[in-house]
Amino acid sequence: MAVYTEVSDEDLETFMAAYNLGTVTSFKGIAEGVENSNYILHTTDGSFILTLYEKRVAPEDLPFFLGLMDHLAGAGISCPTPIKARDGVALRTLCGRPAALISFLEGLSPRRIHAEQCGSLGDALARMHIAGQSFPMERANSLSVGDWRPLLDSAGDAANSVQPTLVDELTAELSALETAWPDAQPASNPEDLPRGVIHADLFPNNAFFMNDEVSGIIDFYFACTDFLAYDVAICLNAWCFEPDNSFNVTKARRMLAAYQAVRPLTAKEMALLPLFARGSALRFLLTRLYDWLNTPEGAFVKPLDPLEYLAKNRFHRSVTCPGDYGLEAAENV
Amino acid sequence: MAVYTEVSDEDLETFMAAYNLGTVTSFKGIAEGVENSNYILHTTDGSFILTLYEKRVAPEDLPFFLGLMDHLAGAGISCPTPIKARDGVALRTLCGRPAALISFLEGLSPRRIHAEQCGSLGDALARMHIAGQSFPMERANSLSVGDWRPLLDSAGDAANSVQPTLVDELTAELSALETAWPDAQPASNPEDLPRGVIHADLFPNNAFFMNDEVSGIIDFYFACTDFLAYDVAICLNAWCFEPDNSFNVTKARRMLAAYQAVRPLTAKEMALLPLFARGSALRFLLTRLYDWLNTPEGAFVKPLDPLEYLAKNRFHRSVTCPGDYGLEAAENV
Repeated sequence: MAVYTEVSDEDLETFMAAYNLGTVTSFKGIAEGVENSNYILHTTDGSFILTLYEKRVAPEDLPFFLGLMDHLAGAGISCPTPIKARDGVALRTLCGRPAALISFLEGLSPRRIHAEQCGSLGDALARMHIAGQSFPMERANSLSVGDWRPLLDSAGDAANSVQPTLVDELTAELSALETAWPDAQPASNPEDLPRGVIHADLFPNNAFFMNDEVSGIIDFYFACTDFLAYDVAICLNAWCFEPDNSFNVTKARRMLAAYQAVRPLTAKEMALLPLFARGSALRFLLTRLYDWLNTPEGAFVKPLDPLEYLAKNRFHRSVTCPGDYGLEAAENV
Repeated sequence: MAVYTEVSDEDLETFMAAYNLGTVTSFKGIAEGVENSNYILHTTDGSFILTLYEKRVAPEDLPFFLGLMDHLAGAGISCPTPIKARDGVALRTLCGRPAALISFLEGLSPRRIHAEQCGSLGDALARMHIAGQSFPMERANSLSVGDWRPLLDSAGDAANSVQPTLVDELTAELSALETAWPDAQPASNPEDLPRGVIHADLFPNNAFFMNDEVSGIIDFYFACTDFLAYDVAICLNAWCFEPDNSFNVTKARRMLAAYQAVRPLTAKEMALLPLFARGSALRFLLTRLYDWLNTPEGAFVKPLDPLEYLAKNRFHRSVTCPGDYGLEAAENV
């Protein structure tokens, strides 16, 4: 929730003069995205989103993010399309920041998730993974297993203020994950553990729906090259738990079945799903823990509870068979 | 800048079922209005604003605010129109709060003000004042002269932390204003000091423009019944000072001339304009001072500088003749 950069009407006029999009009729900051400033822009030609990239997005990553959106949209995935100005360039500058105008996607982000939506999400995720296979750029995941220990170290003993013995529990879990995590180097990447473009942050607030069908996927600013099954694991955490942190196996079954109808998981991917789910739960736990310990009191944006992801991590540690995720035993290992 | 209340897609669906406005295609919280939660809503029928009234708006005032918007829009003033549901009722409930769907106005709020815009604003303000004369409801101004002393008292000596000797200066100014302020009782209201509906918060962020012409006036949630010339004085403060707090008499001249072309100020109104301008500067100084002293450190919304209004108040104290506001001497007293 944020508008960090105020854009004057004059700055906007100069910026829009580079496009063929008619006259601007409305321009409002929207409370979406904590990383960037986002505006909804109406012109006589239609609706658009104007994004100014703030400090937390590295400018050198923008060609990857915008190129990916362009590539996926071209492959028929419903995602924001960067609009090219008359000079053919989409990535521009506004108020001293990198900025891009992107297409407006219809749809609503769900607050309470239905199993039908999980099915449609699984289908959209698999189609996005396949479409991403032909995207030529690479970007390392900057929040993968190798990046978690510095996050845990930075929390230090303060983590125990959130829950006693949290430091010990997370240290043990992190060591276990570091040992078991597959090597992400492309050279050692086996065929049965496919890598490619992953969204890496496909939470319900980054998906739009119309009538329980995915109408769009947004916010590709964590997208990177990693194991595709890790993205599936992130979605299990993001979509298949209830508000009381109980796992809803019906939602997982719908999501995984729809995913596999488009891209069947290999035996190795299925076997690694609990590990990836533990890891992705730890990843969100650690970044939430960081925000929890570093957000000033009285701040407008309330940090999210890290313990939600401790509960999810513990669930995945308890998983003993594919059926726990709603996967058919016959398909597994 | 705020979205305080999260509206679920299901709550929204239930709410919208009461209207004949097609299917909802998009719903985004906007960073506008610090008092309420505002969403921009696209349906197959068009664009709308959905407002949920939060704690700082008294529910008993809502019939006045919504009734006024309806009245003004009906009289040809470009302002948000509350949309009535199929049952004819505009004021409804959503997520336990009073809520209303209002029409979407085109236009952009200016950041740097041009003199042309001040002219159009003066014209729009006068037309709004005339249209408001036939509005039958009354609402006392809850931030008028009688309400300033409690605000100053609540700041106490802490005010001197903003600027040394501020308490003494404001106390003297407040006493002078309390003595000189005309009686607001309708019974004693002379014909040459017209009262009626005033906007009371017509700052640039509450006005939309297209090509330097006012295309809409929004945010009527401070509107009340008071001296019309006091509203003019508020606009002098809000529109006619430069960022360095110097008074731009060209802008004032344009604003007042355009206002008077629609509704000429009486001699008494002209004579009282410096007093009203001092008072309105003090009113914004005091509410800003309150926010300045009561906003927790690290809060997301940075409070506005109260001293901007001390500079404006001092300017108005220095005014000696109508020409200081760009008014023709011949028209005065």
